[in-house]
Amino acid sequence: MVCMCCKKQYPVNNMISDVHYWQNGRIGDFVVKQPMILGHEASGRVVKVGSSVKHLKEGDRVAIEPGVPRDIDEFFKSGHYNLSPSIFFCATPPDDGNLCRYYKHNANFCYKLPDNVTYEEGALIEPLSVGIHACRRAGVSLGSMVFICGADLSSDRLAMAKELGADFLLPVRKEDTPQELSKKVEEMLGCMPQITIECTGVQSSIQTAIYGTRSGGVVVLVGLGAEMATVPLLNAAVREVDIRGVFRYCNTWPMAIAMLASKKVNVKPLVTHRFPLEQALEAFETTRQGLGVKVMLKCDKSDQKP
Amino acid sequence: MVCMCCKKQYPVNNMISDVHYWQNGRIGDFVVKQPMILGHEASGRVVKVGSSVKHLKEGDRVAIEPGVPRDIDEFFKSGHYNLSPSIFFCATPPDDGNLCRYYKHNANFCYKLPDNVTYEEGALIEPLSVGIHACRRAGVSLGSMVFICGADLSSDRLAMAKELGADFLLPVRKEDTPQELSKKVEEMLGCMPQITIECTGVQSSIQTAIYGTRSGGVVVLVGLGAEMATVPLLNAAVREVDIRGVFRYCNTWPMAIAMLASKKVNVKPLVTHRFPLEQALEAFETTRQGLGVKVMLKCDKSDQKP
Amino acid sequence: MVCMCCKKQYPVNNMISDVHYWQNGRIGDFVVKQPMILGHEASGRVVKVGSSVKHLKEGDRVAIEPGVPRDIDEFFKSGHYNLSPSIFFCATPPDDGNLCRYYKHNANFCYKLPDNVTYEEGALIEPLSVGIHACRRAGVSLGSMVFICGADLSSDRLAMAKELGADFLLPVRKEDTPQELSKKVEEMLGCMPQITIECTGVQSSIQTAIYGTRSGGVVVLVGLGAEMATVPLLNAAVREVDIRGVFRYCNTWPMAIAMLASKKVNVKPLVTHRFPLEQALEAFETTRQGLGVKVMLKCDKSDQKP
Amino acid sequence: MVCMCCKKQYPVNNMISDVHYWQNGRIGDFVVKQPMILGHEASGRVVKVGSSVKHLKEGDRVAIEPGVPRDIDEFFKSGHYNLSPSIFFCATPPDDGNLCRYYKHNANFCYKLPDNVTYEEGALIEPLSVGIHACRRAGVSLGSMVFICGADLSSDRLAMAKELGADFLLPVRKEDTPQELSKKVEEMLGCMPQITIECTGVQSSIQTAIYGTRSGGVVVLVGLGAEMATVPLLNAAVREVDIRGVFRYCNTWPMAIAMLASKKVNVKPLVTHRFPLEQALEAFETTRQGLGVKVMLKCDKSDQKP
Repeated sequence: MVCMCCKKQYPVNNMISDVHYWQNGRIGDFVVKQPMILGHEASGRVVKVGSSVKHLKEGDRVAIEPGVPRDIDEFFKSGHYNLSPSIFFCATPPDDGNLCRYYKHNANFCYKLPDNVTYEEGALIEPLSVGIHACRRAGVSLGSMVFICGADLSSDRLAMAKELGADFLLPVRKEDTPQELSKKVEEMLGCMPQITIECTGVQSSIQTAIYGTRSGGVVVLVGLGAEMATVPLLNAAVREVDIRGVFRYCNTWPMAIAMLASKKVNVKPLVTHRFPLEQALEAFETTRQGLGVKVMLKCDKSDQKP
Repeated sequence: MVCMCCKKQYPVNNMISDVHYWQNGRIGDFVVKQPMILGHEASGRVVKVGSSVKHLKEGDRVAIEPGVPRDIDEFFKSGHYNLSPSIFFCATPPDDGNLCRYYKHNANFCYKLPDNVTYEEGALIEPLSVGIHACRRAGVSLGSMVFICGADLSSDRLAMAKELGADFLLPVRKEDTPQELSKKVEEMLGCMPQITIECTGVQSSIQTAIYGTRSGGVVVLVGLGAEMATVPLLNAAVREVDIRGVFRYCNTWPMAIAMLASKKVNVKPLVTHRFPLEQALEAFETTRQGLGVKVMLKCDKSDQKP
Repeated sequence: MVCMCCKKQYPVNNMISDVHYWQNGRIGDFVVKQPMILGHEASGRVVKVGSSVKHLKEGDRVAIEPGVPRDIDEFFKSGHYNLSPSIFFCATPPDDGNLCRYYKHNANFCYKLPDNVTYEEGALIEPLSVGIHACRRAGVSLGSMVFICGADLSSDRLAMAKELGADFLLPVRKEDTPQELSKKVEEMLGCMPQITIECTGVQSSIQTAIYGTRSGGVVVLVGLGAEMATVPLLNAAVREVDIRGVFRYCNTWPMAIAMLASKKVNVKPLVTHRFPLEQALEAFETTRQGLGVKVMLKCDKSDQKP
Repeated sequence: MVCMCCKKQYPVNNMISDVHYWQNGRIGDFVVKQPMILGHEASGRVVKVGSSVKHLKEGDRVAIEPGVPRDIDEFFKSGHYNLSPSIFFCATPPDDGNLCRYYKHNANFCYKLPDNVTYEEGALIEPLSVGIHACRRAGVSLGSMVFICGADLSSDRLAMAKELGADFLLPVRKEDTPQELSKKVEEMLGCMPQITIECTGVQSSIQTAIYGTRSGGVVVLVGLGAEMATVPLLNAAVREVDIRGVFRYCNTWPMAIAMLASKKVNVKPLVTHRFPLEQALEAFETTRQGLGVKVMLKCDKSDQKP
């Protein structure tokens, strides 16, 4: 049950794994040992479907979920297929990614896009899924007070965060201690946040996240840092502040599509650069230098508009 | 709405706060600055009730929940009164405890004991509540695979754990690394436990707990250790192993009473020593030396049987 | 711990209990046996506070939560104080409501309004709370596909629903069977909704809600109908469609205030009529005739603007 | 990825679907249109495995989960594969069951039995799974107060319920109204149960379940009755008593095996009759007449002991 797609869009940014594999040849224990196709955020047009595929047909516009479980193990059976250790995942060695003109993928993990969702939006469902999964793990709902660590030190990115919905901004200075920062957050919000989403992986920021979260609240770890971290675990424990990690995502594509189709979420401003597939190297170079936010690779040279 | 009790039972053990306050005058930021009555695990007989108390009357046998919220704040309103910062709590300075012959307590936090639950069992509901709260936070259910760190290094205590229901015992040797220990646990159980309840607070044991818990599982921190701990947070995060602390308990007394009344849980073997109230010092000395498990103080000199 | 308020706003509409008590003298088992002050949706300005009140002071603008638990029972302790049988509730006989110029209320159930939330918005937190509680019970989150039964048969109200965010409208015709209607909903949405919020209490509509909800989904019953209802319980059971009721709300005011302050929710268009307190009868008459949506009573005759 | 088993055990009882299909040729919309092998509760010995099967090998003793999802749809992906409409299910027409000497099944749904769990226990995991799934849906935990409707009117079955752990028995008389019965339950338990598990499907019993469950509690519908039922939905709604159905089970086999291996649950007394496979008709006849509880069919004529 496969489907073959073409005309994909691939966003590239300097945080994502693709650039890491390109520059360093590894992320932790995942080492590139032989040539590997990059790309794990993609959308495309179906050119062929297997005979048993019913929900898709040639010409359909789809978004691609890059992780496809190989084994029906306890994780898959219980709704957490992202935790299945044998999962196939685009551009995690040794699995090839989808940064190519034609690509074959399990049809159950290709999702039809409604007419009012563009290919670029479809390609951005992958990073949006990271956010959805983190928010689910955190229990974010309308009206939740959320503290997000991680627009990093760039004032451009802070400005983008503001544009996309942040109510308050807190630029971090090197000399601030975690306790001081957590106090500032409380003063800014008028109370401690129930939820903190830590996106840097930096030890001092994780400490700030713990000190800064309300008793009974949740710290979600999205950023990846060093293997060992020194953190105020006692403070978290006696105030019942839960610490929860995220590993990729599961069951997010349908919700992401619904969010985009309803126009409740706008991801379009995130795309700051566009390149045809032939200029992939230039695109990667742009993102490596930290320019812009999302750099989009578009297969159709003649269609480079949003 | 108060009730006054007499003929209480007070267990004392070497882990509990009472001995800490007696020996060290403090636990973390809680400092004994003036004379304070000890005791926070108690049962007794009602001798008087306020005029508005309806669920209790003179002569009723009750177990006492030592924490009584003072303010109707967001924590109390949402069912987490244990997290209310202004809570009254027996024998947490400056609040007096209940290790005395007559004691006045908020009647809403006094629970009637059924005829088939003894005073000693009633007094042991407090430590049982710590276990219930930890199990709830962990999501333990019948058939859960649970790894408990913390019968400590004493072979007596390990034997007691076995007697009370542990299926396997793993004595820890100084030279074992956390990774090695977690491997041993997996081999012993035939799979990794979904839940680990860490009761020591020791850094290496918390590390073992994280490495040893199945992806998607939970580590509950019951033991209190140092303010800062160095732990494999990345390992926990990318395997979505949640880290959750416990602070005392809430809403446990009715369930504990149901458990004891139904005879599904047997706490009686935990009481290894008994003393009349007049020999309180001797009781505390016994427990300070690490002898036995629970040392019970009984107000009625003429009734020192279980 | 009380606070006394003045300058309140009271919305009145034809669905709410106030009009029922006024017209029929009862709702189910709650019977008005002696003169009772109406009003349970209110905001106001604090004119006096008890000596132990710390979070409020004279002059503060507050919204009033009308339900205040009297007993610290199992429901209150576990975070469901709305289910406490002895709860005080404004304008539920025999408890007086707050439709008066000066009113005394438990300060723990008075919530300070931020500067950017108006008195009218504050008064509308009560009906907003019904929605928040229903959404929580349903598990609604961003991207959820939700079917709401109940803008009733009025085309005006349907138009208002559209204005306030409904993506699709389905006018109900008398001759449609529940199965047919549920099919129409599926066709309109492209799939069955995971959540249905039933706000009419009408038997045929509850049937539509059950047939129309996706397997594994939730039907929330907000509308109150007859004591007995004939429904396709087997269909719900074998598809694991949960049926959940709501009784008022708990722990909603802080979230509602956050939602209003962040401008993520706009309740202002709901107010269609305004009257000074002296014209209360006219206001009730307006709402009894089904004119408009929310009819607001404003204490300050000289300030009748939004 | 299949595995082939032999030497299976099949329990048969008068409630289960097998007898229905044998006697009536249908259950609701599921109609037997051509010859179909019965049997959906089974254990066996592996005689052959596919080349990609790693967790099983020839000679392993296994329990068989009869439901195997065919499509990786939203239900399967989110951990509710029991709700997948295209699921294969043993002996639900047109899918053949496993009441035969040799049987081929998806290896991912065959679970290895530990040495201390017998074939008969393995075959009883299917009905045990119904109980586990119902308890999970209900949120049953140690100490929960649970009311189970359904040992039916037989005094033998009531006695068996008592033997297997029921604390109280309430024989139902024809003339008792649902309200009266719910009052009796409350008096018997000393309080209303938080959870009611309704196993009869009879309308009056569902009514009793709703009236008899504590506010904020749960009624789980296990018994299947008529398509339409007249029930006090208003009473359930305003007391926030949730109504939840169950459809078969998912993710129960590993937990059931852990429960049996730990000896925390004893299903052995349920087997009251045993027959060799050759006497299947006699076995079915026995169960059709309502004799005993579980009637076990054993493939090995020479081994008919427990």
